[in-house]
Amino acid sequence: MRDIVDLNCDMGEGFGQWELGEAPDADLMALISSANIAAGFHAGDPNTMDRVIKLVHEYGVGLGAHPGYHDLQGFGRRYIRTSAEELVNDILYQVGAIREFGRRYGVPLQHIKPHGALYMEAAVNEELSQHMVETLQKTCGEAILFCMGPSKTYEVAKRCGQPVVRELFADRDYDESGHIVFARKVARPDPQAIAAKCLRACKEGIVETVQGTEIEMEFESICFHSDTPGALEIGKAIRTTLTENGITIAPAATVLDRMN
Amino acid sequence: MRDIVDLNCDMGEGFGQWELGEAPDADLMALISSANIAAGFHAGDPNTMDRVIKLVHEYGVGLGAHPGYHDLQGFGRRYIRTSAEELVNDILYQVGAIREFGRRYGVPLQHIKPHGALYMEAAVNEELSQHMVETLQKTCGEAILFCMGPSKTYEVAKRCGQPVVRELFADRDYDESGHIVFARKVARPDPQAIAAKCLRACKEGIVETVQGTEIEMEFESICFHSDTPGALEIGKAIRTTLTENGITIAPAATVLDRMN
Amino acid sequence: MRDIVDLNCDMGEGFGQWELGEAPDADLMALISSANIAAGFHAGDPNTMDRVIKLVHEYGVGLGAHPGYHDLQGFGRRYIRTSAEELVNDILYQVGAIREFGRRYGVPLQHIKPHGALYMEAAVNEELSQHMVETLQKTCGEAILFCMGPSKTYEVAKRCGQPVVRELFADRDYDESGHIVFARKVARPDPQAIAAKCLRACKEGIVETVQGTEIEMEFESICFHSDTPGALEIGKAIRTTLTENGITIAPAATVLDRMN
Amino acid sequence: MRDIVDLNCDMGEGFGQWELGEAPDADLMALISSANIAAGFHAGDPNTMDRVIKLVHEYGVGLGAHPGYHDLQGFGRRYIRTSAEELVNDILYQVGAIREFGRRYGVPLQHIKPHGALYMEAAVNEELSQHMVETLQKTCGEAILFCMGPSKTYEVAKRCGQPVVRELFADRDYDESGHIVFARKVARPDPQAIAAKCLRACKEGIVETVQGTEIEMEFESICFHSDTPGALEIGKAIRTTLTENGITIAPAATVLDRMN
Repeated sequence: MRDIVDLNCDMGEGFGQWELGEAPDADLMALISSANIAAGFHAGDPNTMDRVIKLVHEYGVGLGAHPGYHDLQGFGRRYIRTSAEELVNDILYQVGAIREFGRRYGVPLQHIKPHGALYMEAAVNEELSQHMVETLQKTCGEAILFCMGPSKTYEVAKRCGQPVVRELFADRDYDESGHIVFARKVARPDPQAIAAKCLRACKEGIVETVQGTEIEMEFESICFHSDTPGALEIGKAIRTTLTENGITIAPAATVLDRMN
Repeated sequence: MRDIVDLNCDMGEGFGQWELGEAPDADLMALISSANIAAGFHAGDPNTMDRVIKLVHEYGVGLGAHPGYHDLQGFGRRYIRTSAEELVNDILYQVGAIREFGRRYGVPLQHIKPHGALYMEAAVNEELSQHMVETLQKTCGEAILFCMGPSKTYEVAKRCGQPVVRELFADRDYDESGHIVFARKVARPDPQAIAAKCLRACKEGIVETVQGTEIEMEFESICFHSDTPGALEIGKAIRTTLTENGITIAPAATVLDRMN
Repeated sequence: MRDIVDLNCDMGEGFGQWELGEAPDADLMALISSANIAAGFHAGDPNTMDRVIKLVHEYGVGLGAHPGYHDLQGFGRRYIRTSAEELVNDILYQVGAIREFGRRYGVPLQHIKPHGALYMEAAVNEELSQHMVETLQKTCGEAILFCMGPSKTYEVAKRCGQPVVRELFADRDYDESGHIVFARKVARPDPQAIAAKCLRACKEGIVETVQGTEIEMEFESICFHSDTPGALEIGKAIRTTLTENGITIAPAATVLDRMN
Repeated sequence: MRDIVDLNCDMGEGFGQWELGEAPDADLMALISSANIAAGFHAGDPNTMDRVIKLVHEYGVGLGAHPGYHDLQGFGRRYIRTSAEELVNDILYQVGAIREFGRRYGVPLQHIKPHGALYMEAAVNEELSQHMVETLQKTCGEAILFCMGPSKTYEVAKRCGQPVVRELFADRDYDESGHIVFARKVARPDPQAIAAKCLRACKEGIVETVQGTEIEMEFESICFHSDTPGALEIGKAIRTTLTENGITIAPAATVLDRMN
């Protein structure tokens, strides 16, 4: 069983006048240890990024870039067929932008987590994962890559020596194959049930599937989404339940350090 | 008279399938000492940026970010009324993106040059120049800010201690007030006449205006535009004329070092 | 005093995953007589437009195009300096898009209302208003142009014979000059106070200013905004108060017909 | 053999400052009988559309909407995974915009031709073709749908009674399966060879494949691309060769009328 875990959340997913999610950013920041900041392609604009990364600094949270497909209308959830080279250029562009706002507040980049359909595509596309990791090794070999547990991204990062963290998705269901059951509109879930799922996953390495069976799950970070209805209650429940059971919540970099 | 000067050019101003200017990027890179790279808001996309910054590395040219208003259709030439805070966030975003591709090829950021209407706005808007310079002091206090000679940008940068370089626009006409005579569609100018103008400006610090009078002009860098018809011939004429007259063409950072 | 007035509201101002305003579109549609539909440049996307124009059809509301500056991030609230020709092309583009979805549901275009900064710019820019009206005369001479009461837009439309409707802004304050007092973030106003303001304006043609004085106000349509906090209560209060006092709420086209 | 055929070309594929293709629009307009106008999603902006549709009017060419995926950077050549509903909304939006500029110059919409990857996707995606055709039946049942010869689009349009035209691609190669051999960068082809290919296709209904075999090809319109190197010479060669051989070039609507 693990006694330390990262708790990450996608943040800054508004755009201009528009906001996403009901919870105030500062309230969420107080609960998590790593934040994935939208970088302008699927959501987020320079003002959003500035405001949220200032909060990252104030709350001592690990700063992550959350690059996505260039598709504001589709929120980065639509697969776009293009080359690994073009996608990695898109990722670099977004990572650089995030890093610059981090520099403004003295916060180094802790991690990179591709968003939505890009995350899913990298998980199964070895060429993309390979090109992404090789490029990150040149530009930010110290940054932690966030990915699905069983994925090409994880395999490639491990092979190349890029720091890597696997995620448990707290507010998503899994099927027997270990895949996430996709739901565009997520119903308001029960925070306590989610917290219990996270606790069991930390203690036993086991998650129950939608089929009612159990699967093994290895991870170093737990993810929940700021636009899931009740996100604040979910974050609070996870944090309270884990800490009451002796599990420390700490930024991904600290979790990896402790494991080595 | 000056014996060393920077020669800069706006580069990477295509987007996706579209290109701007007739001259191949590599041919221009061989002539200049500093390149201002479009960063995605008025022109340029991650693939363009990657390709051109690779050339910056190969040709040993000074790397500059060329942030503009967020207006692809207007090519950053249309003034947009917004706050200094929002504009500086836009600038940081673009500077960060450029820096990341520089990191890929081991090229540090040498300078920042706002583009088009943003450059012109900063020249007369002290609040914008002040907020921009104060922010750059936190994020890249070593980067050289490119600006108009007589401008709020220059005054503020000098006052705050940000490295700063004034430009002579080789392929633009000046009026008696020292302002550039705006022309949306530039006719194909005479490269030799431009080169002679640059040489006289270097030697005597004098530029002839469209009214036929002469004005004094202080500058550390000469700018010509890659989309001016005959850009390649212009660049060649300037380089040949200056070097034949004992004036060294060197990156802005070198020019500033020599002056101190 | 008037016994019939139009009640209009900006609708469909979300984009992709993002929504604006707390009130369900259908609930608002049940209260108003004319809807201004965002057309993609400052807000709105083809899916939003389709969904909302379907509601326009179901509720028998007058269909309006709500063209804005091409600026999603700024929500069309930032002035962009460009030519009347370019702005009118932008307007035509957006009007055509709205009309096509209207055609899908058998709803003809009733009116055109420029959005935000474009509305304000047209109000004071005679060249823009002139070019806009002359062009609309060719493409939709029967469509009603919505505008500020005292404005260049109104003068030009009257002169050219384009149907025109002046607006009273229910949820905005006026100053003594008859201008709207701009507020980026609108506090939650008192629906009853707004309704009383509308009633008095209908009956007496008088509006109280922020200075406490009274000004005369001519209008054929009352506007409130779907993103004003409490929009639904505001709409209900206006509708109830007006109808209880014998004032019919009807689409702008009906209001104009009755006046002639 | 056929004695009348349409000759169509994609037009207006610039954006803002950027142009595509070397041939002046007016020169191309003088050669063709139908023009497919980019509508802002993959290329084209309101100013481009206005300018080119004015030419459509002046040259008496058939006006076509050329809707594409919403992807300026990818020029609509990248497949985006999304629902038929969303894609048809995108198409309606673009068709409406084109129609509005046509209205300005008194030119009715003659046809609709999806662009690039969207055209290719519709050819193989029956659900998309079905939803597109059913929607067009409501909004513009008289407009001709342009499509690949053997395609789901053709089958569905025929079944539903939507006017439909099949294309022969003059400047693209075919393989034995009747599919186009994709080439992102097209080399400068021989105009006479292309003209001969078109003539034979008109006379014998036969096209030679890249494998050297022959396939049958039914079509009512010949397409060449304005960004193919040497587009003007290609258009001239096709027009000259066909007319010298007694084949009339006429807008698609005329071709269909003649056939009925």
